[in-house]
Amino acid sequence: MTNQEKAQQLEQWDRCAFFHPSTHLADFAHGKAPERIVNSGSGVYITDSNGNKLLDAFAGLYCVNTGYGQQKIIDAICKQAQELAYYHAYVGHGTEASITLSKMIIDRAPDNMSKVYYGMSGSDANETNIKIIWYYNNVLGRPEKKKIISRWRGYHGSGLMTGSLTGLELFHNQFDLPLSQVIHTDAPYYFHRKDCNQSEAAFSAECADNLEQLILKEGADTIAAFIGEPALGTGGLVPPPKGYWQAIQAVLDKYDILLIADEVISGFGRLGAMFGSDLYGMKPDIITSAKGLTSAYAPLSASIVSDKIWQVLEDGTTKLGAFGHGWTYSAHPIGAAAGVASLELVDELNLVDNANVRGQSLLNKLKTAIGSHKNVGDIRGQGLLCAIEFVADKNSRTLFNPIGQHGPKVAAAMLARHVIGRAMPQGDIIGIAPPLIISEAEIDTVVSAITAAVSEVFGD
Amino acid sequence: MTNQEKAQQLEQWDRCAFFHPSTHLADFAHGKAPERIVNSGSGVYITDSNGNKLLDAFAGLYCVNTGYGQQKIIDAICKQAQELAYYHAYVGHGTEASITLSKMIIDRAPDNMSKVYYGMSGSDANETNIKIIWYYNNVLGRPEKKKIISRWRGYHGSGLMTGSLTGLELFHNQFDLPLSQVIHTDAPYYFHRKDCNQSEAAFSAECADNLEQLILKEGADTIAAFIGEPALGTGGLVPPPKGYWQAIQAVLDKYDILLIADEVISGFGRLGAMFGSDLYGMKPDIITSAKGLTSAYAPLSASIVSDKIWQVLEDGTTKLGAFGHGWTYSAHPIGAAAGVASLELVDELNLVDNANVRGQSLLNKLKTAIGSHKNVGDIRGQGLLCAIEFVADKNSRTLFNPIGQHGPKVAAAMLARHVIGRAMPQGDIIGIAPPLIISEAEIDTVVSAITAAVSEVFGD
Ligand SMILES: Cc1ncc(COP(=O)(O)O)c(C=O)c1O
Ligand SMILES: Cc1ncc(COP(=O)(O)O)c(C=O)c1O
Repeated sequence: MTNQEKAQQLEQWDRCAFFHPSTHLADFAHGKAPERIVNSGSGVYITDSNGNKLLDAFAGLYCVNTGYGQQKIIDAICKQAQELAYYHAYVGHGTEASITLSKMIIDRAPDNMSKVYYGMSGSDANETNIKIIWYYNNVLGRPEKKKIISRWRGYHGSGLMTGSLTGLELFHNQFDLPLSQVIHTDAPYYFHRKDCNQSEAAFSAECADNLEQLILKEGADTIAAFIGEPALGTGGLVPPPKGYWQAIQAVLDKYDILLIADEVISGFGRLGAMFGSDLYGMKPDIITSAKGLTSAYAPLSASIVSDKIWQVLEDGTTKLGAFGHGWTYSAHPIGAAAGVASLELVDELNLVDNANVRGQSLLNKLKTAIGSHKNVGDIRGQGLLCAIEFVADKNSRTLFNPIGQHGPKVAAAMLARHVIGRAMPQGDIIGIAPPLIISEAEIDTVVSAITAAVSEVFGD
Repeated sequence: MTNQEKAQQLEQWDRCAFFHPSTHLADFAHGKAPERIVNSGSGVYITDSNGNKLLDAFAGLYCVNTGYGQQKIIDAICKQAQELAYYHAYVGHGTEASITLSKMIIDRAPDNMSKVYYGMSGSDANETNIKIIWYYNNVLGRPEKKKIISRWRGYHGSGLMTGSLTGLELFHNQFDLPLSQVIHTDAPYYFHRKDCNQSEAAFSAECADNLEQLILKEGADTIAAFIGEPALGTGGLVPPPKGYWQAIQAVLDKYDILLIADEVISGFGRLGAMFGSDLYGMKPDIITSAKGLTSAYAPLSASIVSDKIWQVLEDGTTKLGAFGHGWTYSAHPIGAAAGVASLELVDELNLVDNANVRGQSLLNKLKTAIGSHKNVGDIRGQGLLCAIEFVADKNSRTLFNPIGQHGPKVAAAMLARHVIGRAMPQGDIIGIAPPLIISEAEIDTVVSAITAAVSEVFGD
């Protein structure tokens, strides 16, 4: 078979048998939406089957933190596969890698974190977190304290319960979500504030105040936990306004409500700190981790539970026997081996600092290049999590109507320049979240592509 | 550090930082429950860090179907890791392996199956299935048709919704499950029938009749789907009684209720057929797969949807745009590569036939060895999914009271003989589900260990 025949056959199989996530199914099946087969990756670049080499300024789905083709992680995966690709972790079983990784995670996590439960995805880790929290309140004799508060524009997964935590209508509509156990409060999205003159501190105080009103309305003894990303991710890539977490934390403490810090994106360096919780002074009871934990080389997630939670779980099993929760692939040996190697690389390559330094530079260069453009409403970021939000009118911060048409155009114009940025859902927002190994020269390439794309789409 | 010091350090890290699934947390943390570190595997054997070589007659968690240390799968994983460990599969992206695997799955699946959606676990695939089914009924304009019927003693996962589908109290208690969207009907557990004289056919008819009553009581227009394992798995390893699936299928057809065949255990050969649906004449609309899909070498699951479902999903995206469901690690390249190699091995090593032949032999040999033992109530199986159920009194089929004390004792006595069997939850049942590559000599080793263990625990 020639290469061309092989390519045609693959495309045909793809369109007739593969149900892709987050895809327009009819258009894809009928050849009207593009297909891309990715063959290889190196550093911040991927190469597709047509030989296009693309600078991936979104690190897959902000997850390939150490970059593509890291030999150390590849070797760790091969070694583990050769020795033992799988055994389960139920009833006290483990591997050297899964045990070592547990210790490494606790060493790096904020104070008072005690134990690590493994899954395969950010979504399943958040499922585990809710199971833990419901069990916790049952053991404490508070069977009514079960609701979870999440924020509009938060993203916490794609399952039925985790999709409910997610605060984007796109993921609710047509799926009968959110489920009744989940309620939503304000998005900490300062750029979208109603009153242009409101200060960040006042906006944060308003968020905390609205949270308190919601808790009082529902009854504090019905609310188990609050979940939030340190900086909003998929909902817009928005660092919190000044004083936000301090104000929220005070309300949670007042009503004895647990805090889940969803650090699936932010954990292990992306924000220029090991954890976002440290950066913003959050005091989480549970931390969700995935993505950067293995740099996506293998599926692995972690629910990191605090000593306060763990003590109650121990009491629970003393009373009730084994904790009845497990995934077949919990602590999968290959995921654990990838995790150990990836976290070692984060240290060896000094990636937390690099995220900080390059992130700062990316923001500065973007502001210089397009900050004064009439359709650039906001350029924001923390570490290597960065966004550009487009507006119809700059002075009044008026969004486009309809929303969501211009972000994809800019992303397409960037792609034409061989740079991948992500058009974020429910907005006209370009997300930039490259591998944390990105160099200054590669930052310049990204900034140039964005600058040219903005001109192309909006004019100068 | 000496080997002994290293071992001590690992154990200390394990007990102080690792939250194991399905474990007694207090006992484990305080050194009162055993720890086992698994180092390597080959064929049907694993070796732990103390040098114990154990015959794993449960294939991990009935998942290592091709056996440990298969070089072909290891090589496929290493090659993929070297070329491209990760890129996402959103909006029409894929890899050669994920596309090829889709085609291979559809080629092997029952008729009318159309497309494959990938996750990482059996649980997340069942979440996806429910999302698909709710969306399906919304597109069809039947917003009330949403409840899912599952069976008592079914096992479908450990999440909030999937743990609700699971019909074992152990997984409900203390977790506030089942959620309200799930209702349960009879377990197809003929050995537990009330009337000793009832025929299998009459028992099956009763199950179908009770299902119909339940549907009528709830209202057929509120019931979206029925989910079942072709043969009950974790709930007791019970092949269906004669005529069961025909009778159930007729009721589902009558009320326009979809069938999800949960083939996480049975898919790709364990029952001595490629799929349990084929074996029992089920006509599923969606099939859940995991475990045998990759032989557990990497986390991968599949929701295989029929053409009937797919057509409606296409209509949905034509009306509504992209299908808003995705996991970061959907169709993970390493999982897909492991899947391709594992399914090729199933063919090359003729494992479907081997499961049939060895399974038959295992059953026969067990019946000869312990079939007449006073405490052996039932020996049952299909392919290499086999169970021995212990009873207090053989003639009256009286179970032990309390239940669940004797199964673990037999498993422990087997382990002392270096054979791993699994004491199934909520019963006195030993499960045997070895890698499908098991040889006749290894079957003999398993039967000897069981025979000796039964004598030790119950006397002769
Ligand atoms: C903050 C956050 N939580 C959870 C998730 C879900 O992770 P996964 O896609 O691995 O299920 C994501 C995915 O983007 C995320 O960004
Ligand atoms: C029939 C069945 N469905 C679903 C699952 C859940 O799979 P996982 O543990 O990969 O989430 C299992 C696991 O044992 C199973 O046996």
